[in-house]
Amino acid sequence: MNQSLSINSIIEASKRIKDYAHRTPILTSGSINKIAGCSIHFKCENLQKVGAFKFRGAFNAVASLKKEELERGVATHSSGNHAAALALAAQMHGVKAYIIMPHTAPAIKKKAVEGYGAEIVFSEPTLESRQDTLNKVVEETGAHFVPPFNDTRVIAGQATAALELIEETEKLNFIIAPVGGGGLLSGTSLSAKFFGNDIKVIGAEPKGADDAFRSIRDNKIYPSVNPQTICDGLLTSLGDITFEVIKENVNEIITVSEETIIEAMRMIWERMKIIVEPSSAVVLAAILENKEKFKNRNIGVILSGGNVDLEKLPWNK
Amino acid sequence: MNQSLSINSIIEASKRIKDYAHRTPILTSGSINKIAGCSIHFKCENLQKVGAFKFRGAFNAVASLKKEELERGVATHSSGNHAAALALAAQMHGVKAYIIMPHTAPAIKKKAVEGYGAEIVFSEPTLESRQDTLNKVVEETGAHFVPPFNDTRVIAGQATAALELIEETEKLNFIIAPVGGGGLLSGTSLSAKFFGNDIKVIGAEPKGADDAFRSIRDNKIYPSVNPQTICDGLLTSLGDITFEVIKENVNEIITVSEETIIEAMRMIWERMKIIVEPSSAVVLAAILENKEKFKNRNIGVILSGGNVDLEKLPWNK
Repeated sequence: MNQSLSINSIIEASKRIKDYAHRTPILTSGSINKIAGCSIHFKCENLQKVGAFKFRGAFNAVASLKKEELERGVATHSSGNHAAALALAAQMHGVKAYIIMPHTAPAIKKKAVEGYGAEIVFSEPTLESRQDTLNKVVEETGAHFVPPFNDTRVIAGQATAALELIEETEKLNFIIAPVGGGGLLSGTSLSAKFFGNDIKVIGAEPKGADDAFRSIRDNKIYPSVNPQTICDGLLTSLGDITFEVIKENVNEIITVSEETIIEAMRMIWERMKIIVEPSSAVVLAAILENKEKFKNRNIGVILSGGNVDLEKLPWNK
Repeated sequence: MNQSLSINSIIEASKRIKDYAHRTPILTSGSINKIAGCSIHFKCENLQKVGAFKFRGAFNAVASLKKEELERGVATHSSGNHAAALALAAQMHGVKAYIIMPHTAPAIKKKAVEGYGAEIVFSEPTLESRQDTLNKVVEETGAHFVPPFNDTRVIAGQATAALELIEETEKLNFIIAPVGGGGLLSGTSLSAKFFGNDIKVIGAEPKGADDAFRSIRDNKIYPSVNPQTICDGLLTSLGDITFEVIKENVNEIITVSEETIIEAMRMIWERMKIIVEPSSAVVLAAILENKEKFKNRNIGVILSGGNVDLEKLPWNK
């Protein structure tokens, strides 16, 4: 495993973010426990700054830079939560963030990133144009590239969510995290290994975007081709670093149906009164579709984010 | 002031609910602070059991009963959060709850109360029929009536939310709570007096249901006649006990427009990723309409509940 993903890298990340990230609450719901037949501890990263765990990794990466690197700013390509997270982390460090976004990105996403003072650089909506544009920005400005997930500093930052979850709960039998690019799941599995006591770690993924499930099963990284899911945060494929960490430390990847994802999302909204995005709900969906497996166990789950369009809820069609 | 509303009654209530109610988180939002120009600590009673602070008062009242009183069950008239709260509190004590509800109440409210194992007794949708039906139930069953707000045990229970808020925050200059029947505001003002250090307490009320504002101004209880507001938890008038407590301990009642209530509600959903009902949003609306008054101050607000119909959001018309 990558040398820089040590127990110390997570402890250092935890210290770096301590005064800047929210220590998010861990909530429980008696009525969901009754429905699920087990005891669930929800680590609420939807209540994290920028509404997603992504702030932890982005902030840790920025805070890890040397002063002379920092001064030239940071850059990434993303139109999602990582973009907002990096923009805010840069703003808090008083440096510039360049965010490469396809010109087709929704206005609401552009506005969020601009709200944190970042400069948006538009590309064509292709992988190639995105990469070319990023390269050009990095070359011209000297900005430091902070990848969305395939990066040891980012993974160490995401690991702090599970660290806090383990610190604040009694012996967990399982931790479940969603898997898209694998940054959160990698970090979660490392914290379970370093700080937990025999905790099984499970990744949850939509059936319609099951590239991580297949990649681990067949021991090779499949690209995520034409994924069909409401979970807009879980569309990407694994990176080489996250693939290795997950292969080594994650016990299982469970895939779930769209129907159960929406049911789980609505259950969390209605019973817990918190807003989660579909990508978050996969963790509860994994329990609801496998009740026997989790029966009477103590389970930690990571609710990854809460960024949804309030005018387009999946049950208001 | 009523003898039984002592500092001890609140400390006792706090001990009674400790292992049964959620100790709800206190959240902050950098972006809302920036908009509001002050530092706001949100005590999230929307994340309380049954989705509202009402559980504290109902549980404290039930837990205060002697064994022989308890055995005959409890009763109340309500189709809102107090009904669900009393039903759950009774269920947790293994006793019966009789809930008097107009037969015109929405199916969703009936279902919630039945879900907690309570027996619904229907009345006509008039105050008189409601009271007659309650009297009849109490006479026939020997059940103990637990009023929704005008009751010292209920008020002492509601006071525990502000007690926790004060315990966990640095010196607050203000605490703002919504006012309907006045149970939450009364309890909040008592906790501020007993446990706070010179905290000003403010009630927030919709302009379209400003009976508490007028009652305190004119020193007499006005009934709430034909209130016009989206805040379905703030339609009732004060009781004689809550009126006296508020008169003595609350510094001011601020009324706010429906427009700002909806703006504040949406701001909390979007920026904090938590679900609050309109009645909760009045506290932020009071700040947004009075920014000069609260400028740079440290403010605690109580988000009273999160029970909304997810298919009828005020911005999806």
